Amino acid sequence: MILEIAQIDVKPGMESEFEEGVKKAAPIFKRAKGCTGVTLHRSHEMPSRYRLFVQWGTLENHTKDFRESADFQQWRKLVGPCFASPPYVEHVTEVVRGF
Amino acid sequence: MILEIAQIDVKPGMESEFEEGVKKAAPIFKRAKGCTGVTLHRSHEMPSRYRLFVQWGTLENHTKDFRESADFQQWRKLVGPCFASPPYVEHVTEVVRGF
Repeated sequence: MILEIAQIDVKPGMESEFEEGVKKAAPIFKRAKGCTGVTLHRSHEMPSRYRLFVQWGTLENHTKDFRESADFQQWRKLVGPCFASPPYVEHVTEVVRGF
Repeated sequence: MILEIAQIDVKPGMESEFEEGVKKAAPIFKRAKGCTGVTLHRSHEMPSRYRLFVQWGTLENHTKDFRESADFQQWRKLVGPCFASPPYVEHVTEVVRGF
């Protein structure tokens, strides 16, 4: 299990449109191979900054299966116009579950 | 509910020690006021980079109650020597649960 963390800065004033776009995109992620969840989180310190968390079975489910799919274009069509800059993406794996 | 995301770069070679420190610190977070969970995630792209996720009831549970407690010093004593630089901390709130 891999967690994709995408840090996304949106154009100031487009926060609601971006959040709506992510809501509309939920079915895209739901049908993506290996995708088991997607949530969007908004920063307190920088209200135009978000973290999109996407859970994937494998790294390739994201970097290959999803990014090379037509649905990826669809996803970017829904939210891309809101981006202030290209998203910064990292993948992480849970190594400690404290409680 | 607030999620603290701490981006922590550790000194190369100290990854295991850092992970052990976080495991040992689990009881500290468990008894912290308003803390409902802590997990540690390691980056695929940068193996000396981690994200610590800590769930808090309120922002103040972290920024005031925890940071001003003796337990915060204890936490830093356990993991601080592994830090390559000061952690970068942000707080986020879930705004969309796609699925």
